[in-house]
Amino acid sequence: MKATYQFTGRLLICCADRPGIVARVSQFLYALGANILDASQHSTDPREGLFFMRMEFHLENSTSDRHAFEASFAESVANPMQMDWRIDYPDHRKRMGIFVSAYDHCLQELLWRWRSGELKVDIPLVISNHESLRAEVESFDIPFHYLPVTKENKAEQEAQALALLANTGIDFIVLARYMQILSPTVVERMPGRIINIHHSFLPAFAGARPYLNAYTRGVKLIGATAHYVTNELDEGPIIEQDVARVSHRHSVEDLVMLGKDIERQVLTRAVKAHVDDRVIVHGNKTIVF
Amino acid sequence: MKATYQFTGRLLICCADRPGIVARVSQFLYALGANILDASQHSTDPREGLFFMRMEFHLENSTSDRHAFEASFAESVANPMQMDWRIDYPDHRKRMGIFVSAYDHCLQELLWRWRSGELKVDIPLVISNHESLRAEVESFDIPFHYLPVTKENKAEQEAQALALLANTGIDFIVLARYMQILSPTVVERMPGRIINIHHSFLPAFAGARPYLNAYTRGVKLIGATAHYVTNELDEGPIIEQDVARVSHRHSVEDLVMLGKDIERQVLTRAVKAHVDDRVIVHGNKTIVF
Amino acid sequence: MKATYQFTGRLLICCADRPGIVARVSQFLYALGANILDASQHSTDPREGLFFMRMEFHLENSTSDRHAFEASFAESVANPMQMDWRIDYPDHRKRMGIFVSAYDHCLQELLWRWRSGELKVDIPLVISNHESLRAEVESFDIPFHYLPVTKENKAEQEAQALALLANTGIDFIVLARYMQILSPTVVERMPGRIINIHHSFLPAFAGARPYLNAYTRGVKLIGATAHYVTNELDEGPIIEQDVARVSHRHSVEDLVMLGKDIERQVLTRAVKAHVDDRVIVHGNKTIVF
Amino acid sequence: MKATYQFTGRLLICCADRPGIVARVSQFLYALGANILDASQHSTDPREGLFFMRMEFHLENSTSDRHAFEASFAESVANPMQMDWRIDYPDHRKRMGIFVSAYDHCLQELLWRWRSGELKVDIPLVISNHESLRAEVESFDIPFHYLPVTKENKAEQEAQALALLANTGIDFIVLARYMQILSPTVVERMPGRIINIHHSFLPAFAGARPYLNAYTRGVKLIGATAHYVTNELDEGPIIEQDVARVSHRHSVEDLVMLGKDIERQVLTRAVKAHVDDRVIVHGNKTIVF
Repeated sequence: MKATYQFTGRLLICCADRPGIVARVSQFLYALGANILDASQHSTDPREGLFFMRMEFHLENSTSDRHAFEASFAESVANPMQMDWRIDYPDHRKRMGIFVSAYDHCLQELLWRWRSGELKVDIPLVISNHESLRAEVESFDIPFHYLPVTKENKAEQEAQALALLANTGIDFIVLARYMQILSPTVVERMPGRIINIHHSFLPAFAGARPYLNAYTRGVKLIGATAHYVTNELDEGPIIEQDVARVSHRHSVEDLVMLGKDIERQVLTRAVKAHVDDRVIVHGNKTIVF
Repeated sequence: MKATYQFTGRLLICCADRPGIVARVSQFLYALGANILDASQHSTDPREGLFFMRMEFHLENSTSDRHAFEASFAESVANPMQMDWRIDYPDHRKRMGIFVSAYDHCLQELLWRWRSGELKVDIPLVISNHESLRAEVESFDIPFHYLPVTKENKAEQEAQALALLANTGIDFIVLARYMQILSPTVVERMPGRIINIHHSFLPAFAGARPYLNAYTRGVKLIGATAHYVTNELDEGPIIEQDVARVSHRHSVEDLVMLGKDIERQVLTRAVKAHVDDRVIVHGNKTIVF
Repeated sequence: MKATYQFTGRLLICCADRPGIVARVSQFLYALGANILDASQHSTDPREGLFFMRMEFHLENSTSDRHAFEASFAESVANPMQMDWRIDYPDHRKRMGIFVSAYDHCLQELLWRWRSGELKVDIPLVISNHESLRAEVESFDIPFHYLPVTKENKAEQEAQALALLANTGIDFIVLARYMQILSPTVVERMPGRIINIHHSFLPAFAGARPYLNAYTRGVKLIGATAHYVTNELDEGPIIEQDVARVSHRHSVEDLVMLGKDIERQVLTRAVKAHVDDRVIVHGNKTIVF
Repeated sequence: MKATYQFTGRLLICCADRPGIVARVSQFLYALGANILDASQHSTDPREGLFFMRMEFHLENSTSDRHAFEASFAESVANPMQMDWRIDYPDHRKRMGIFVSAYDHCLQELLWRWRSGELKVDIPLVISNHESLRAEVESFDIPFHYLPVTKENKAEQEAQALALLANTGIDFIVLARYMQILSPTVVERMPGRIINIHHSFLPAFAGARPYLNAYTRGVKLIGATAHYVTNELDEGPIIEQDVARVSHRHSVEDLVMLGKDIERQVLTRAVKAHVDDRVIVHGNKTIVF
């Protein structure tokens, strides 16, 4: 008697737009007995001519395991159609590392949603350049690593961080108000896998002290932006943004306090989209299905 | 030499969920050479077990005309899979009738978006139980029909309206703050084809005078709801809703004025979704793709 | 040498509208050397003819202490003008009691904002009819009281709760998703001092299971309402409300999860307004300055 | 027998913060028998030490006319307290000039709200560098002036415009998507009296083609900003802003269409705040009461 497999997969595809893509993918899945649970697609403007798709499917009683499934999909669909693709399985809990400095609000929000089961990840470590949040992190039974950073030791500190990430099998990292700029070598090792929360509505007020700048400019809304980190500071692909209304009554301190609420919400939504494999990065933009 | 046809179609499908639906539909389209321009699908909770799909496709050089296409789809896909389905073609401009009383804001918004080309419909008539908006409507070169209504003549007035709708080939009607309740016989003749704007966030403040009720209750947000009309007053399937923030500073008159802005926006979005064939009504709810 | 006093006060006033109120109050304060830090006023519609004011002032080198100040204000301003008034002092930290059942999200949010210093209250106790949140509460060094409730012991349980509130000098209580209805006798002892978070946009979906009802009705926005508790269930004066957009894609479980975020935000804003003495209750409505 | 006067006034004040300002102003008004209808004040951070106030009052049976009232207020209150102040009277309908190019949406919105009585201004003229909106404007019985502009004739065209503004007694102008940059000499003649609508959430995407830039950057919200025009392009004091959510599904054309809705709403709110004398400009920021 032959072994059978069952699994749910999330297929993310990007390729040149042309007739027959949906037919071919869905036919391939149907032939294996898969049920499509959810599907979204997006065709860009004909001038760009690109096709993006996310398909979540479930296979019962498959005679192929995941590896065989992937090989077969590559050979019979993806390669002939020159697809850029990846597949993830929700039963593989992604391993999320958190980098934090001294602000606790984004960290708190992530840990709390993780504990409540809403954020379906493992968190093998939190890395900080300050000691101050150790007790908080350890109260969740999560290892806390204090890696102080200075101009002089930056290369060494990052090497230590990378070693920790490698040893714990981290899939992606979240900069939960980590007030350091990562070196290009770190960023390049994790393309599309480092999420940052910037405390402004980018591209307005990129750089440091955005709330002070927003106050000085007298804007009537403030915002926050979650984006993938690239080596262009605050220029990476945006995943999620939101704003809140402010007025002349708000001091800079009020903007900071209100901003924290937006940061928590925006970062959470971005992390959830990433964890659920809803984000495709293309160039400097995202498709969030 | 055989004639060829080209057309864009929008297929809306509802059926029991099971493997192979997407494959079968997309395979059918691909075999005819169609390109899928946009597709959305929704599977309900397994307890309900329903599948909804909207697929917009384009056919070049088809040897079937629309009628043959539909017959073939019914025979080879829809009937075997027991689908509830319909198809619309964007090059068929829907014919929209507007019913209005004395408030002009929703009427204005629709006429203006129609004239700017944003609302891709024909408007063969406006029917009103008041004369007051005649000049406004006629300035857009749209026929205005004054059909006053009283308790006594209601059946007769509605018969006149129905005759006008039939003569002008109206596809759907919009009650742009028409302050009359249509008789069940009228509603039953146009299921899913009468859109109303209710001036509250339903189900709060159903019935008459919602702004006064909102004021009395001291709510901090007011809203508007666009929904399909059924014979349960203010209980039909909701297409779109929105709200705006209010405070103790707003008088009832302020709520009415602010409410008009929400009504205009909400009604416009609902009408556009209907015109673009993005709405499937199922039971008393909508799927808006 | 005479003793001098310095204090900041927040004066809340409601009276019949007529000329000279602002002049009289501000003249009274100026004569004592007070600086007005913030002032807001609201005159209702002439038909109602009411005047509301909140004035925050600071006194340096006052020869009166608070008690003498209040007596003097009553005698020379409030009584002659038949004002309904109260005064609070921000250096008196209000003492907040929290009632909770098994949901932790609103509790968490309050405790967290309290610890960060954003919520300027003391929290002498949390009362729950379940044991499950004890560890969480105690990790904040706040006493947790488990008072299980049944139909039979309700009167006794409430008596215990009232005794605890009295012993700890509680100023107001927050029902942070406390799934019990307080008896009229309890409510009547704390008018305008019990804040509840209802998990819907009231008056839509009052009562139990609002998210299920919202799902069934197919609304496109869900909300939450913070209000003072009265003996009319879910009918008390509304302090704050907010909504979030939903669609057919949201299951009941999704609505619950999304709703929690709105509940946390809305309850926090309402509690802060109460703590900052920004809320005047008049009849069944609030003025939130 | 002496003549008596009655009028409603709106007093706007900016001065150094110190005790007694409210007392002195309200005492002055009370002594004349004025009733305060509405009052708002704002004290900045002590480091800035500024005080702003808007007070709307009504005088019955005043023995002073407006001129005498103003002289008396200057002498006994404003000058001694070194106030920067102005007063407006709601029964003086402001005279609003509109500048427009070829886009009609902002123009339409203003004209329509004016006709409905919601915007309480007179509109003695619309000036455009295109002929295309003449019929639209004239259908409202408003004079339309076609003043084409080129690099060569710009000085002359602006002189013509200024002459028209002077002849018609214009109080303020609205650039309702007027695609020209006014010369410094024009701007300097009307400080705080030229309102522009910029089609982005400033300071993001200042300059030309903001929707294209927003599309290219992949933002998840787009916005609009109404501000007073200064000689720093897109840098003048912001009156109002708002945003709408967008996604990868929106083409540049969609952003333009959606943006028009935001522009209309934002510009309308800014113009209403200006007309109701709710805006104080201080430095490069606004206080909007």
